[in-house]
Amino acid sequence: MSLGVEGVLRERLLELVGGALRACEAEINRELADSPVQLVRELGEHVALAGGKRLRPILVLLGAALGADPHGRAVRLGCIVELLHTATLIHDDVVDQAPLRRGRPSAHARFGEDAAILVGDHFYSRCMALLVRDGDLRVMEALAAAMVSMTEAEVFQLERKRASALSEADYLRIIRQKTATFMSACCRIGGLAGDLDADGVEALATYGERIGIAFQIIDDSLDFAADPTRLGKAIGHDLLEGKRTLPLIVTLDRATDEERGRILEALGRPGLQDADVAEVHRLVKVYDGVGYSVARASAYAEAGIAALARFPDSPGRQILTLIAEYVIHRDR
Amino acid sequence: MSLGVEGVLRERLLELVGGALRACEAEINRELADSPVQLVRELGEHVALAGGKRLRPILVLLGAALGADPHGRAVRLGCIVELLHTATLIHDDVVDQAPLRRGRPSAHARFGEDAAILVGDHFYSRCMALLVRDGDLRVMEALAAAMVSMTEAEVFQLERKRASALSEADYLRIIRQKTATFMSACCRIGGLAGDLDADGVEALATYGERIGIAFQIIDDSLDFAADPTRLGKAIGHDLLEGKRTLPLIVTLDRATDEERGRILEALGRPGLQDADVAEVHRLVKVYDGVGYSVARASAYAEAGIAALARFPDSPGRQILTLIAEYVIHRDR
Repeated sequence: MSLGVEGVLRERLLELVGGALRACEAEINRELADSPVQLVRELGEHVALAGGKRLRPILVLLGAALGADPHGRAVRLGCIVELLHTATLIHDDVVDQAPLRRGRPSAHARFGEDAAILVGDHFYSRCMALLVRDGDLRVMEALAAAMVSMTEAEVFQLERKRASALSEADYLRIIRQKTATFMSACCRIGGLAGDLDADGVEALATYGERIGIAFQIIDDSLDFAADPTRLGKAIGHDLLEGKRTLPLIVTLDRATDEERGRILEALGRPGLQDADVAEVHRLVKVYDGVGYSVARASAYAEAGIAALARFPDSPGRQILTLIAEYVIHRDR
Repeated sequence: MSLGVEGVLRERLLELVGGALRACEAEINRELADSPVQLVRELGEHVALAGGKRLRPILVLLGAALGADPHGRAVRLGCIVELLHTATLIHDDVVDQAPLRRGRPSAHARFGEDAAILVGDHFYSRCMALLVRDGDLRVMEALAAAMVSMTEAEVFQLERKRASALSEADYLRIIRQKTATFMSACCRIGGLAGDLDADGVEALATYGERIGIAFQIIDDSLDFAADPTRLGKAIGHDLLEGKRTLPLIVTLDRATDEERGRILEALGRPGLQDADVAEVHRLVKVYDGVGYSVARASAYAEAGIAALARFPDSPGRQILTLIAEYVIHRDR
């Protein structure tokens, strides 16, 4: 099933915006590797080689494809959002002490934390300069608001992690602010580049927020389910980082007092063992934590698709619908 | 002498822009402590309590005071540049592993590196949102360019530190890009807020760049000379961090081969001892590394004052001149 959606999606996507996506990819790689400073280039090239799904630029391109993009800005904006996303990943990996990113050493693992922090800051700044050059205050406002929201949520997540407490409401707040707001902004600026009317832009932004929530829930669920060679990060890594995600939250909710105590004890132990991870995974399976999460994610994805109803049928709308389905059915 | 300049400067400054400076201070503290997330507030308040010279907002206010500031934007812009500066300091201290900032524990020492990285990113983003709200593309362009330059220089500095090599030209490039470009941008946006003509804005930007270079050379020289209780950071800390600054660079240049070997060996040793620091300081004194640096800084400060020549005499111009003198004669 999942390969089916992914295959069809890829084909349709390349048909509609393949040229723009390749241009975007080239521009991203150029931006990442373009600097008079060798260490910036090396780290940028390392990150560029890891690639990525490019979901955020794709959302920008498709949003613009629903309209006219009279100034051909979508490629440039797609590059900017991916660069911004890359900067946040570089810092996130330092904060999470994540050794891997997309199956390769993370930037800080390869180049040191100091370099990762500084190059991340540099890419942030470059995005701001690129946005200023583009010169559209509405685009800047959308991305600045998304960045404020994302970074605030990152701190909130850390605070909750330190308190060893996270409710489902906290979790949803975090993923909404972290992932969904940014995807929503990508759709919004795509719509702005495409010169859609105000209602169209809002509908796209709503779509982006909803599939963003769905995307993150599935991302977190994959940590409990996926094949490590495909996902490109270590299974159970969220647990090792002390991150509580929806499958675990619902399991804690549904477990017996004794089981809950056992899970919390394992999570609280410095240096979680493989046996602890296996036991937590077993209980998540027993209480169908992943099933519950996928059902929640599916509802958000459906709501995202519903937000597209106001647009006439078009290849762009069809592909946005396929993306909402892919978000749920992907296995990496 | 130094207290003299500082005292006169403070008095004249408060006379001309005291109200605006207090408004700016209040807004900075409000911004730092304003968040729905407790950890953001706590870290922000910690940083706010440490205060600071507020040199960058002062440059904005004085630049605006040379003109009209018809929209009263200087206070808001002053707040933004200080917030931006604060974000860079929070990250710098993580990168440098600096335990102190202005005599108090640095943000990461108190709240953890993860929190410092994330809250730094959050303050960056907030600055971008505030700039968008101000809505002046020229201001945004100046600050984005300064941030690109600063962050690039931070990485270059790290690269040179890892290579254990720094020439005087490299050093000047770094401080120009790191400190001077930002001070220049502060003067520039002050001039823009003050509605100066294009030549006036450029003259102010030139002034800012020159005193910025002077400021940083003196800052680096103080590490070899100042009273630790006044400077608020540990003496010799730059050495401990492996940072080579102008007094050391010129000393390495002037020293005998044997002495140079001794210094480089000490610097290369992991865990520099007090005796090593003392020996390096002794050689810097012997070869007048600080004297050379102060002379270079003075020339830049003079060039900064010269850039003000096109403005008619006014309290604002007089105070900018006093600042150029204070930059050289300060002892903290």
